[in-house]
Amino acid sequence: MKHSLCAAVLAIFFPAAAQADALLNQARQIFQPLPAVMASPDNPVTPAKVALGHALFFDPRISLDGTVSCARCHQPALYGTDGLAKSIGVKDRLNPRNAPTVFNAALEFAAHWRGDRKNVEDQATQALVGPPSFGEPGYEAAMAKLKSIPGYKEMFAQAFPGVSNPVTPQNWGLAIGAYERTLVTPAPFDAYLKGDTKALNPRAKAGLQKFISYGCIACHNGVDVGGGSFQKFGVLEDYWKATGSREIDKGRFDVTHNPADLYVFKVPSLRNVAMTPPYFHDGSVATLPQAVRIMAKVQLGRTLTDTEVSDIVAFLDSLTGKLPKNFMASPVLPPAPFTPAKP
Amino acid sequence: MKHSLCAAVLAIFFPAAAQADALLNQARQIFQPLPAVMASPDNPVTPAKVALGHALFFDPRISLDGTVSCARCHQPALYGTDGLAKSIGVKDRLNPRNAPTVFNAALEFAAHWRGDRKNVEDQATQALVGPPSFGEPGYEAAMAKLKSIPGYKEMFAQAFPGVSNPVTPQNWGLAIGAYERTLVTPAPFDAYLKGDTKALNPRAKAGLQKFISYGCIACHNGVDVGGGSFQKFGVLEDYWKATGSREIDKGRFDVTHNPADLYVFKVPSLRNVAMTPPYFHDGSVATLPQAVRIMAKVQLGRTLTDTEVSDIVAFLDSLTGKLPKNFMASPVLPPAPFTPAKP
Repeated sequence: MKHSLCAAVLAIFFPAAAQADALLNQARQIFQPLPAVMASPDNPVTPAKVALGHALFFDPRISLDGTVSCARCHQPALYGTDGLAKSIGVKDRLNPRNAPTVFNAALEFAAHWRGDRKNVEDQATQALVGPPSFGEPGYEAAMAKLKSIPGYKEMFAQAFPGVSNPVTPQNWGLAIGAYERTLVTPAPFDAYLKGDTKALNPRAKAGLQKFISYGCIACHNGVDVGGGSFQKFGVLEDYWKATGSREIDKGRFDVTHNPADLYVFKVPSLRNVAMTPPYFHDGSVATLPQAVRIMAKVQLGRTLTDTEVSDIVAFLDSLTGKLPKNFMASPVLPPAPFTPAKP
Repeated sequence: MKHSLCAAVLAIFFPAAAQADALLNQARQIFQPLPAVMASPDNPVTPAKVALGHALFFDPRISLDGTVSCARCHQPALYGTDGLAKSIGVKDRLNPRNAPTVFNAALEFAAHWRGDRKNVEDQATQALVGPPSFGEPGYEAAMAKLKSIPGYKEMFAQAFPGVSNPVTPQNWGLAIGAYERTLVTPAPFDAYLKGDTKALNPRAKAGLQKFISYGCIACHNGVDVGGGSFQKFGVLEDYWKATGSREIDKGRFDVTHNPADLYVFKVPSLRNVAMTPPYFHDGSVATLPQAVRIMAKVQLGRTLTDTEVSDIVAFLDSLTGKLPKNFMASPVLPPAPFTPAKP
């Protein structure tokens, strides 16, 4: 009697299929489902901070020429990317690398392809003065623009209560960071990890099996299916020969000047990868099947068959998540009585 | 008995306040409330056309450098404008004039400040090859990009059923135009015109009274409170002396070469004007009170007092409408296996 009750309880909380599924058990040792919010002890996510960050994220008026907001390179319509090989910022300035999606980005262990930004907060703050991003000559100019928009005064005060001068570059970063920490995109793969074995179709399961056994998981693991380490791109052969990259990017070497960091980049998250072409740090590859083929070749020395590629792509499709409502819905910005500088 | 019943019925359908309101009666002879959809016999608004137009409106991938969508200059966060004096398009190219809001724009008798676009459909089509807009060298290049995005094939087929090759510049314009014809922003002033006399506060009513009696309504009338005629900017004195414009724009003269068209522009709609700074064809004026003062001076020869200005601004505030849901919510674009041209 006791035993059958226990079994009944187990059956309710852990469906039989889930218990019996070896692939699922294996996957659970490698990956974790997304949290509801990507919390950080350094930047508590409060509604007032998120509301401010949401507005700031979509405001182009703070940039040098008034055309660049965070949303210019991270567009709702394009799954938080801009669809470009390399982003174009103020004054038609080309960014050195591809803009990754902002979705789930707060889970990564560092920001930017070379990991030279600590986290999403740091990234947002530094973007203000990045020459090909917002392009402001200094933080003072950016803060002056923010302060010239009356509606932001109250929003900053509410987001940072008890602070005498809350309009600072750091608080800009904290507000946008808090907002970004809400941008999670739960996908069929998360449902699968939680025990819904029907959330993946047979092809996706076959792809997951290969993704594990071929060794993709050495780098693409954890809650973000990547985003947890630095790795050399081109372990077995030069990446630019496979990708047709126009320029050879030395990666982290240019940051650390350590020879061990030559061609080393942050491993990107693969969440929503099917919706965010083009691929790699330089956007040199246009399609996901092509990107999968190249990665298998240059990282693992494996030449994939068409079936293997399409199975793995089917698994990657299961990482396409539900779009966050407060990203797809635009905020309404406080109107400003100022005219941005003319170009 | 019969009389009192009649009075009761009247009281239900026509509130007493409305019947007694002379200002309302006067306003109703000059203005009309917004329709639910800005229908056109030339471009029936169908759900499939609107869905396609919504996607196309937000897609930057069709432009020369992949950075310009309709939404770049008509942003949801900024009430369908870009907040700039003059828009900046592909390759950092400056547009000759200020981008007006796309809201209610389909009601205007012509498009563009000089009226050299027939309607919103024509404007959308011509923008594709406008050098400072989408900047495509020709329609063929733009259509090739559209056709390279597989997801659009079905959407065009559904929007234009029975057409063998629906991906054409004209259908691009018709789809975006149909979408724009849904972007109406009913405002407190519309509620007022429909009989809710409490929809305007006393200051707004005082402003409306002045707006009528001072003659602003000579040009700013009808359903769009403007957008119905061409008029000279600077009837009584040169506009550029009052606005501080950096360049003298000859307006429609440069289109028609008719001396009568010197400094003639399309009268803009004043709907949502409080939310769409900066002002005038060249965005030369930063605040609404300043714009009101200048218009009274150069068009009507009247120097307004501070109270008169703030009353009129209170009336203009009542033209700020409810934001259209299908503009504030981003579409999700079909992903594309192509890399836009590198700059």
